[in-house]
Amino acid sequence: PVQVVPQSPALMEKGNYRHFMEKEIHDQPEGCQRTIAAYVDMVAGATTFEGVDLAGVERIQVVGCGTAYLAGLVGKYLIEPLADLPVDVDVASEFRYRQPALRENTLTIAISQSGETADTLAALRYCKDKGLQTAVVVNAQGSTMAREADVVWPIYCGPEIGVASTKAFTAQVSVLTALAVAAARARGRIDAAEEKRLVGVLVEAPRLIAESINLEEAVQGIAHEVSKARDVLYLGRGPMYPLALEGALKLKEISYIHAEGYAAGELKHGPIALVDEETPIVILAPYDSYFEKSASNMSEVMARGGQVVFITDPEGERHAPAGAKVVVTAPRCDPLIAPLVMSAPIQLLAYQVAVQKGADVDQPRNLAKSVTVE
Amino acid sequence: PVQVVPQSPALMEKGNYRHFMEKEIHDQPEGCQRTIAAYVDMVAGATTFEGVDLAGVERIQVVGCGTAYLAGLVGKYLIEPLADLPVDVDVASEFRYRQPALRENTLTIAISQSGETADTLAALRYCKDKGLQTAVVVNAQGSTMAREADVVWPIYCGPEIGVASTKAFTAQVSVLTALAVAAARARGRIDAAEEKRLVGVLVEAPRLIAESINLEEAVQGIAHEVSKARDVLYLGRGPMYPLALEGALKLKEISYIHAEGYAAGELKHGPIALVDEETPIVILAPYDSYFEKSASNMSEVMARGGQVVFITDPEGERHAPAGAKVVVTAPRCDPLIAPLVMSAPIQLLAYQVAVQKGADVDQPRNLAKSVTVE
Repeated sequence: PVQVVPQSPALMEKGNYRHFMEKEIHDQPEGCQRTIAAYVDMVAGATTFEGVDLAGVERIQVVGCGTAYLAGLVGKYLIEPLADLPVDVDVASEFRYRQPALRENTLTIAISQSGETADTLAALRYCKDKGLQTAVVVNAQGSTMAREADVVWPIYCGPEIGVASTKAFTAQVSVLTALAVAAARARGRIDAAEEKRLVGVLVEAPRLIAESINLEEAVQGIAHEVSKARDVLYLGRGPMYPLALEGALKLKEISYIHAEGYAAGELKHGPIALVDEETPIVILAPYDSYFEKSASNMSEVMARGGQVVFITDPEGERHAPAGAKVVVTAPRCDPLIAPLVMSAPIQLLAYQVAVQKGADVDQPRNLAKSVTVE
Repeated sequence: PVQVVPQSPALMEKGNYRHFMEKEIHDQPEGCQRTIAAYVDMVAGATTFEGVDLAGVERIQVVGCGTAYLAGLVGKYLIEPLADLPVDVDVASEFRYRQPALRENTLTIAISQSGETADTLAALRYCKDKGLQTAVVVNAQGSTMAREADVVWPIYCGPEIGVASTKAFTAQVSVLTALAVAAARARGRIDAAEEKRLVGVLVEAPRLIAESINLEEAVQGIAHEVSKARDVLYLGRGPMYPLALEGALKLKEISYIHAEGYAAGELKHGPIALVDEETPIVILAPYDSYFEKSASNMSEVMARGGQVVFITDPEGERHAPAGAKVVVTAPRCDPLIAPLVMSAPIQLLAYQVAVQKGADVDQPRNLAKSVTVE
């Protein structure tokens, strides 16, 4: 069943876009800007999370399904190193049945665009029953999850109509990025000056996301190649690992190409057997502390005849091993917001491949917008 | 580079088998039996883990690569509910670089057949440097990991020659299954009588694994169908989820078919878009507490034209929705040892598909037995 979200008719129009998904990709600078603005005080250069004692919390347990789960995984990669706060992320349908060993003083964060996803709601209730404090990151503020949680951290990206989530994902990641900074500050891992710097980085994200969306044309040529493939691998390390999973999920959802995401370090432990001339390998690697390892994976793939689509930034392009089939150069940014800035290229790639294949982008086969039954 | 393991020449012979992998699949009852015998006292009906205070440990952090990582994931599903002991499982190549937020009183368990896997060794050293107690589950007792860890829990399956791990996987899972029982007892979650019952269940595993290996012929027909596919999905819930990942990894490694494992509950959040007549869906579902949900996923897949290969037990076969293309019926067993008993069918399926495709089973393209460089 599709969850009907109350919304203004104006917001539901596609405007000049062919599909809601295309529109929603372009909505992201605004959606992230409005979301970030809700969690930072730009004048003071500080984060503003209410309702939770981030200094006293001992762990975070994230639950979600599909893209929302992957947003949580990005959050883990940001929160743990910055705030020294352990984050466990579970697929909600697994979490609720596996009898997890939970500990008190754990903050549950349920992530769901609709706020109605059946498994996520059940996982939220499970944690509530265990006496844990609960927060939800939802788009629909009138949703069941928003009503039942102790704390609601809304995203402000406007209604999302396309079945393949885009702007809800980056808005969810925006909340978790702000949360990472807030938790780091609350736990004394960074001082006010560093918080101010990171808030400055975060408020720059919408502009850089907009720049990243301008890569639309650069992605078009790659999409033409990828649309011929039957299988695609996405590789990344660190925060680019969940993004690789998300890129693969997007392509799978709307183009029906079998795309799979992998931690790049696992390449040699199995998936490299799949590498041949016909399987494009998308490698996500901004020029960060992981870059050298990712570039080395890229060389391994190319040595075995694999065609690499390398999504990086200008610095990464300069340092890339020669021979990448196509390089998509996203704007350079602080690692804190790289997951936000690198999202547009993978969304655009999936979108354009689907369009070139003539697929029904906004209503992909077999999928519903909100999964409100198990 | 391939790690050369000291071994007796006799053990290295294939005997009557065509490939080492086939031999090693058949070695599993003995390998598991010898491994289980090392960790249980059959007379007393008790587990015998030494060197670690399982009552005092507050968390377990597992690190591993490829199949060893997946053995760790099976361990999480067994240890958490039985012992109420939280288990975090990380891909070693991610763990060592992501600045994990570790807590004291965490026991690190590194899993590696060779004991030399570069990323796993680095992750082990990382945890040691942080002052955590370390244990390793290794096949090669003279390995670097065995020398550097505080505690060594060997597996006793004999040298593994085939690049695709089989008997090392089930031996690793055997250790973790015994550990789940030992930790549950040490932490007062079960009494001596229940420990004795579970030890009895565990010592039955080798016989049931042997029965499961007898499914070789039943699997052959399925292998013929699957060998024509270019893409395959593996689905499972609970402990069958990591097993679905392992089944997909095996097929990928040796047959070059793009197989992907998924938590069955995630089906509707993306992968169901891939379901069509050409993509076999392997569903792993013994008749346990997850069965009804898995059967429901099976119906969803079939309603969309998907061809299901259903791997279950006699009770599950009776309760299965009509229409599964092929049902493989493994022996019924206690949920504690289901991951061990259900391993053979997925290994045999991958093996037979690869043989039918004429692939070089023991030396798949691009892969090395031990990844001793990053």
